[in-house]
Amino acid sequence: MYKFYYFQILFFSLLTLSAYSSTGTRLLRLPTSRQDEVVYCESWRFSVETNNVENWTTVPTRCHGFVQKYMTGPRYQSDTYFAAEPALDYVKSLSVSNDGKDAWVFSLDDTLISTLPYYELHGFGSEVFNKVSYNEWASLAVAPPIEASWILYKELQRLGFSIFIVSGRDEYLRNVTEANLISAGYTHWKKLILRGHSEKGKLANDYKSSKIKDIVEEGYRIRGVSGDQWSDLFGNSIAQGNSISQRTFKLPNVMYYIA
Amino acid sequence: MYKFYYFQILFFSLLTLSAYSSTGTRLLRLPTSRQDEVVYCESWRFSVETNNVENWTTVPTRCHGFVQKYMTGPRYQSDTYFAAEPALDYVKSLSVSNDGKDAWVFSLDDTLISTLPYYELHGFGSEVFNKVSYNEWASLAVAPPIEASWILYKELQRLGFSIFIVSGRDEYLRNVTEANLISAGYTHWKKLILRGHSEKGKLANDYKSSKIKDIVEEGYRIRGVSGDQWSDLFGNSIAQGNSISQRTFKLPNVMYYIA
Repeated sequence: MYKFYYFQILFFSLLTLSAYSSTGTRLLRLPTSRQDEVVYCESWRFSVETNNVENWTTVPTRCHGFVQKYMTGPRYQSDTYFAAEPALDYVKSLSVSNDGKDAWVFSLDDTLISTLPYYELHGFGSEVFNKVSYNEWASLAVAPPIEASWILYKELQRLGFSIFIVSGRDEYLRNVTEANLISAGYTHWKKLILRGHSEKGKLANDYKSSKIKDIVEEGYRIRGVSGDQWSDLFGNSIAQGNSISQRTFKLPNVMYYIA
Repeated sequence: MYKFYYFQILFFSLLTLSAYSSTGTRLLRLPTSRQDEVVYCESWRFSVETNNVENWTTVPTRCHGFVQKYMTGPRYQSDTYFAAEPALDYVKSLSVSNDGKDAWVFSLDDTLISTLPYYELHGFGSEVFNKVSYNEWASLAVAPPIEASWILYKELQRLGFSIFIVSGRDEYLRNVTEANLISAGYTHWKKLILRGHSEKGKLANDYKSSKIKDIVEEGYRIRGVSGDQWSDLFGNSIAQGNSISQRTFKLPNVMYYIA
């Protein structure tokens, strides 16, 4: 323990020195030479999943291998369980009315269905997003389900929730998206909301929150939101006037950020 | 790649079976036998840092070793850097007025100063929080600085920000808290806000958001919030009427949750 603090003090002194010797525009330097790649990439992932970083376009070069391993090994799937299981615990604690107005909002890609087959062909987030090639892939309607979300979806339906799916996909993909949802095992959603022509320029936060507002204005009580992007989850608190009793559940996503 | 999908399909089938064979109250089961401890604890940590789980009282038994290793090894410190560095990048992009009304809000414990010396003596979050023994330790005023936050703090002051420190500590700890802040290298904060007698029963979310509201009502523009609890960060969006352009920066904390 004492050894640890001596290291801390030494480290802090070094940092302070380097901070004051800099030109002043950037005081903080990550001690990269002291960090191995795994520590760096785990921390990068922390900053992504907490929304500390915004508007990033590609996975940092030194984390390409880390993200591939994370996505194809057991960790990604395990993390999706840790988004669904607390939701199931929470849902158990709710009393659901029989007026059909208790609602849950899901995002689509990488929340209900997985784009991993696409990203496996495109470097797991190491390439800049290409909407044309992504839409082509989406048209194939082959995205598999994310199991943890599928189980939550089925349980919510069993309990009488109305399910809304809010996606940033363009409206012209409606038929293939419905076909994909069905082939992935999802049925009887209340509404699948896609991005109409007039909403094409909107930022995800604005688009998602306006759609969630519409749902609330139709008289639904949104009891929870599951999404892989913070724009999915912030939209909820905006639309709900920040009622913090409403819960949000973040699915992991370290392959892309939607602004 | 194909091998991976066969595994997924097999796994999904098994899950579906187990889901339907249950009595219905709990459909989702984590495949614990398939997960090693590290995968489980990394996922638990993901669910904590994203606020997927709320109101947890102690670190799960199987993750005691994981949390100790995380806190005393390089990862915790590295994660604090990934809360401060995006904040420094963001701050660079702001134009700061010379009216002194641009403000930043910091939490105290495990944001500006570290309670790790206390938790090292108390099982790194494996014991239920004991306020009496914690307050005794706080009275010693020996909490060291969290270096990344210290650098951010100094840079914000250099740029002309007013700094508010909002803590859930009780008012009677004011003198020792100020002494601790100074010995940890922090000076010239605008206000240190502690929990008064009338606020003792308040939930952290309500307490923090009402204090942030007060700051806004005094004419300050809160440009960012750094905190290790989601209640620190949600308070901001509540008080600001959810202006999503305001940024929040989550510091890691896997030792305790403040409700």
